[in-house]
Amino acid sequence: MTQWIDLLPKAESVVADARKNGIIIATAESCTGGLVAGLLTEVPGSSAVIDRGFVTYSNEAKQEMLGVSFETLEAVGAVSRETAVEMAEGALKNSRADLAVSVTGIAGPGGGSVQKPVGTVHFGLAAKKRKTEHFSANFDDLGRDDVRLLAVAKALELISNSINCPSEI
Amino acid sequence: MTQWIDLLPKAESVVADARKNGIIIATAESCTGGLVAGLLTEVPGSSAVIDRGFVTYSNEAKQEMLGVSFETLEAVGAVSRETAVEMAEGALKNSRADLAVSVTGIAGPGGGSVQKPVGTVHFGLAAKKRKTEHFSANFDDLGRDDVRLLAVAKALELISNSINCPSEI
Repeated sequence: MTQWIDLLPKAESVVADARKNGIIIATAESCTGGLVAGLLTEVPGSSAVIDRGFVTYSNEAKQEMLGVSFETLEAVGAVSRETAVEMAEGALKNSRADLAVSVTGIAGPGGGSVQKPVGTVHFGLAAKKRKTEHFSANFDDLGRDDVRLLAVAKALELISNSINCPSEI
Repeated sequence: MTQWIDLLPKAESVVADARKNGIIIATAESCTGGLVAGLLTEVPGSSAVIDRGFVTYSNEAKQEMLGVSFETLEAVGAVSRETAVEMAEGALKNSRADLAVSVTGIAGPGGGSVQKPVGTVHFGLAAKKRKTEHFSANFDDLGRDDVRLLAVAKALELISNSINCPSEI
């Protein structure tokens, strides 16, 4: 089974890429609960590129820390494209970062539904002067730990791609 | 070597104690970078007691997210009793939590000094209607990973003690 620390090489790569390109990173996490920030800051010297992280576990935290709208949460829920986008944009706005990633999903074991089964995770990627991107994944009901680790790995991949292969506006 | 996930039983115990006592928790993390929040939210059902986490890696984040004063950071630095106390009190004030723990330290490999060697970690524990408590530890230069894990374990222990053995005002 993959352990959290096994993902460290991915974090090292992200931190190196960010340093090389002078990019500062922020995170906005719900289902991963701080593990993306925790992994990035495991890298020595990461303080040069990691500004802050928002662990917005409750809906109130999403609204108060990131400015996610009550209307969005009411209409489509915390695990949605819209919320992921608003989380990433809020993290960019409320930090000194150039790039922010967001993660919101259902890690299980409870909380799943037919429309949003356990393993559903939405990601947002916001960067200055760029259109915010959205990604979603279904990691299946692999167990809470594995769903969270897969989500951490995906978030790191999205940051890496954003730095190395920025899309057109 | 202890792995992050090996600390899960401690987090399960904290979440169970908080649920039993109706206590909501927030975290304010610097050197642990989100790992305390990440471990607490690994526990199924933790959303009932975890409101949010502040990963304040930069000094600007400590000021902007938690209200740590510039004067404190200038006078005694980010790794200090004063900063740990202000971080915990800021997390309590800027959240819906009843109890907030803070962690700020030098995980290494760099950043140490004679007065503040690698392994120095300060913790704050703020709770409603209680005087904020401070704790410090020196975990020695055991390596970045181990210093961070020891700090996570200590933070969980402090929350647990605060819930189960609250000190007099």
